[in-house]
Amino acid sequence: MEDFQTRLRSHTAEVEEIIKSFLPKEEGRLKTLLSAMNYSFLVGGKRLRPMLMLETYRLFGGDDPAIRNFMAAIEMIHTYSLIHDDLPAMDNDEYRRGKKTTWVKYGEDIAVLAGDGLLNMAFEIAIEGGIAAREMDRGLYALRVMAKKAGVYGMIGGQTVDVENEGKQLNLETLEFIHRNKTSALIEASMVCGAIIGGSDEATARRIETAAGDIGLAFQIRDDILDVIGEEEKLGKPIGSDEKNEHMTYVSMVGLEKANQRVKDLSEQAMQIIADIPHENPFLMELLRSLIEREY
Amino acid sequence: MEDFQTRLRSHTAEVEEIIKSFLPKEEGRLKTLLSAMNYSFLVGGKRLRPMLMLETYRLFGGDDPAIRNFMAAIEMIHTYSLIHDDLPAMDNDEYRRGKKTTWVKYGEDIAVLAGDGLLNMAFEIAIEGGIAAREMDRGLYALRVMAKKAGVYGMIGGQTVDVENEGKQLNLETLEFIHRNKTSALIEASMVCGAIIGGSDEATARRIETAAGDIGLAFQIRDDILDVIGEEEKLGKPIGSDEKNEHMTYVSMVGLEKANQRVKDLSEQAMQIIADIPHENPFLMELLRSLIEREY
Repeated sequence: MEDFQTRLRSHTAEVEEIIKSFLPKEEGRLKTLLSAMNYSFLVGGKRLRPMLMLETYRLFGGDDPAIRNFMAAIEMIHTYSLIHDDLPAMDNDEYRRGKKTTWVKYGEDIAVLAGDGLLNMAFEIAIEGGIAAREMDRGLYALRVMAKKAGVYGMIGGQTVDVENEGKQLNLETLEFIHRNKTSALIEASMVCGAIIGGSDEATARRIETAAGDIGLAFQIRDDILDVIGEEEKLGKPIGSDEKNEHMTYVSMVGLEKANQRVKDLSEQAMQIIADIPHENPFLMELLRSLIEREY
Repeated sequence: MEDFQTRLRSHTAEVEEIIKSFLPKEEGRLKTLLSAMNYSFLVGGKRLRPMLMLETYRLFGGDDPAIRNFMAAIEMIHTYSLIHDDLPAMDNDEYRRGKKTTWVKYGEDIAVLAGDGLLNMAFEIAIEGGIAAREMDRGLYALRVMAKKAGVYGMIGGQTVDVENEGKQLNLETLEFIHRNKTSALIEASMVCGAIIGGSDEATARRIETAAGDIGLAFQIRDDILDVIGEEEKLGKPIGSDEKNEHMTYVSMVGLEKANQRVKDLSEQAMQIIADIPHENPFLMELLRSLIEREY
């Protein structure tokens, strides 16, 4: 039997193919802008959000090509947020995943516009998906969820509170607010859109939302833990970089043991919610477990 | 009988009231972000886009409160584009309409996020409007039009080509591309959304789109003309500022006489399209004429 890493690779390739099919052609007067958008999108990463969406959709036995639009849209939203996050006025990051960030490669002006372009394009694609869904009420429900979770009362809100507290003493409540919005909100959007387009009823989608929120938070605390105990080469960034930046982390606030316990509690709760759903997707369970137990 | 300026004032007040009702409350953890969004939105201006939308809707005898959502959404899109446009990495403007720009007042990071927040919120509101429209197919049609015109193949595309050509020698074709996208695209979205939600058929909406595109271009050429012949105090910015910035204008390319002729041709074409529609809205006609013939 294949191991998880092999399955993960083939699932990632499948997701990549789907989301890439929505990228614009780099041609005409807008070639530079479109290249900057595609460059940022293709620098890649784990494609976690569209993968969670697809696997949650499959959990419910989904059979609607509109899921493809929502997968591309959520990854575009994630990508635009990274482009703007990396700007000199924000985190001022020059490299991401070993490659130059968008503003370094294309200039700050094009980076602002490429981010705007991806956010707008995400909505164009999600709107098409919502309208084309086999059951339009499901499509439009998913569209609303995605829009809300990406916005000021979701991801942008988390990002803002994070930026405002850079270098400041945080309390645990504020840190959880940041994680639950900056990170969890798009995980929630991914899994709820997957559930709804996949055929879930609304009450179940709300339970999925709770589980997704907890998974996002656990994922982020795990990230903080890895930053402390992780191995530099596996992680791809200097160990302790968050501490160096005077970034308050979960671990620095409650200690390693309590942080580990919190990850465990959140994960168990979340996994139980998914396990209680009377359908099965073993790969989704493996994937979720890998996010929480990952060592890289 | 009231004169046009009096009517314009009361129509502006009406539009203001509608669009302001969609602004978020400045409270909670996100107070600064929400204040920055509202500040930028309330710095104001002529509210031209939502006003054109409302009056086009009225031309077709519109009777659907969903128009309010689209009015707020288009103004939020316009506002976000100005916030990002003013950033140091873009036009580096410190004042707009006599007030500090968003990045000067709130910092560059919050300005980036406030722009993102307004764009996302515009979609949240337009999606609600699209779904709530009396005839949902009209609502969703308007939603798609707005999304497309705001995006890379619309406003963002025009903005990009403008930024890329800053200080460079332009040809007329490129300048028209910039104007038709940076300016006309949102005018088109405004009038087409107004027409569709107002009850127009698709073929008529397409004619409205053509007229709106020409009006946007005429408006922009008129802007260039005013920059040359305008009176400084009326315009509120130094005469010839575009030339100082080595910004190539329509007038500097073809001369004042041909520029005036082009405004006249575009306007006549556009006004004829509107006049041929078998409904009437005298205020819309006055408004359009004022845009093209304005002296401030």
